[in-house]
Amino acid sequence: MTIGKKHWAIAEGYIPEGSTGPEPEMLSHETACILNTTDQDAHVELMIYFSDRDPIGPYEITVLAKRTKHVRFNDLAEPEKVPRGTDYASVFESDVPVVIQHTRLDSRQAELGLLSTMAYSE
Amino acid sequence: MTIGKKHWAIAEGYIPEGSTGPEPEMLSHETACILNTTDQDAHVELMIYFSDRDPIGPYEITVLAKRTKHVRFNDLAEPEKVPRGTDYASVFESDVPVVIQHTRLDSRQAELGLLSTMAYSE
Amino acid sequence: MTIGKKHWAIAEGYIPEGSTGPEPEMLSHETACILNTTDQDAHVELMIYFSDRDPIGPYEITVLAKRTKHVRFNDLAEPEKVPRGTDYASVFESDVPVVIQHTRLDSRQAELGLLSTMAYSE
Amino acid sequence: MTIGKKHWAIAEGYIPEGSTGPEPEMLSHETACILNTTDQDAHVELMIYFSDRDPIGPYEITVLAKRTKHVRFNDLAEPEKVPRGTDYASVFESDVPVVIQHTRLDSRQAELGLLSTMAYSE
Repeated sequence: MTIGKKHWAIAEGYIPEGSTGPEPEMLSHETACILNTTDQDAHVELMIYFSDRDPIGPYEITVLAKRTKHVRFNDLAEPEKVPRGTDYASVFESDVPVVIQHTRLDSRQAELGLLSTMAYSE
Repeated sequence: MTIGKKHWAIAEGYIPEGSTGPEPEMLSHETACILNTTDQDAHVELMIYFSDRDPIGPYEITVLAKRTKHVRFNDLAEPEKVPRGTDYASVFESDVPVVIQHTRLDSRQAELGLLSTMAYSE
Repeated sequence: MTIGKKHWAIAEGYIPEGSTGPEPEMLSHETACILNTTDQDAHVELMIYFSDRDPIGPYEITVLAKRTKHVRFNDLAEPEKVPRGTDYASVFESDVPVVIQHTRLDSRQAELGLLSTMAYSE
Repeated sequence: MTIGKKHWAIAEGYIPEGSTGPEPEMLSHETACILNTTDQDAHVELMIYFSDRDPIGPYEITVLAKRTKHVRFNDLAEPEKVPRGTDYASVFESDVPVVIQHTRLDSRQAELGLLSTMAYSE
């Protein structure tokens, strides 16, 4: 059985800026968890939207067949890094059905999540 | 690609009353994050509902084409401020499809969200 | 404009048992926020499900036209109190469309919510 | 009245590894709350997906008629334990409609949940 949709959006995102010590750095794991239950690799294109500039992307993400992937927005590098200290939103388009959940991890507590919500799909 | 719906609701809202020091003030960022992926500006009308009085609004919000906007309920002023210390709910009607997520920001932690949930859409 | 559905479910609920001081008492505000945007009063029937006994209810809840209501599970009394220290789930049936959000309030922080998620609807 | 769907997914999961004292152990209650409102027992098959290995399962879960069940991922044993310190995702298939909510419990606070989100359904 496969499950999911091809289009997903997360309206809220924020990566803290700079560093005021080791803790804020550790707190900043903004993540999109992508689940691909199909037997084909999922090719996902991610666009990042802002309040005051044109969207950037697409970021190309591959989630292998029958695998899950935790995409950390902090780690996105191509076509450019996601700016820090800036509100953003994200839109995902996949060529096979996937499920996407938005989670902010707090590494102070052994990777427990601070918040999590299923993304919007259609 | 565009994504979203025109009607959204958040059943739970609360802006803390007054101030008992600097911290409660900083904690009170109740936010609706609106994403507009279309190439037209989104004109959004927001109505606020209460437990014991008639709804107020509409508040007029514009989210530019291909942009995101974080609407802070604390900042809403026209037609009137949202009362503090009062439970409320909010309903959004947009002229183009948008995605809306409800987030409560905790500014003690470099703007990390304390909670977040996708709003109800139809 | 009205928005919502007539059937909602929250699969997770828990009211802490007893009291180990003033704090646990203050932490135990398990809430269903119900929004009624219609111009008719909503008559909502709530059933509570358990892991090891028959469901109880219906609890009768009225949400006035164009009003919101925060239902605290702690306060439910008829036909009986919701047991403490027990996992439960809740199902709502309304005669007009409503929107229901599940929130656990942490009154240590001026009523800020600790978690919130839109309920399941159909 | 019954409510629910037969297919559910949670894209994000994590059970902390080992123990660095009593607190991390207490924090690790990753839970899927399953509600069965039908008058038949629900036979649920759970598959666990990973980033770097084949999925494991199915885990067989029975939720009795008109009952709720809190499934702790920590407790799953057959066909094998869920690895600690590893990102995973979960997919549920039920033979009757159910409602599934993902909750991470923080037992430091009398079983209050740290985060909760309705799972994705179809």
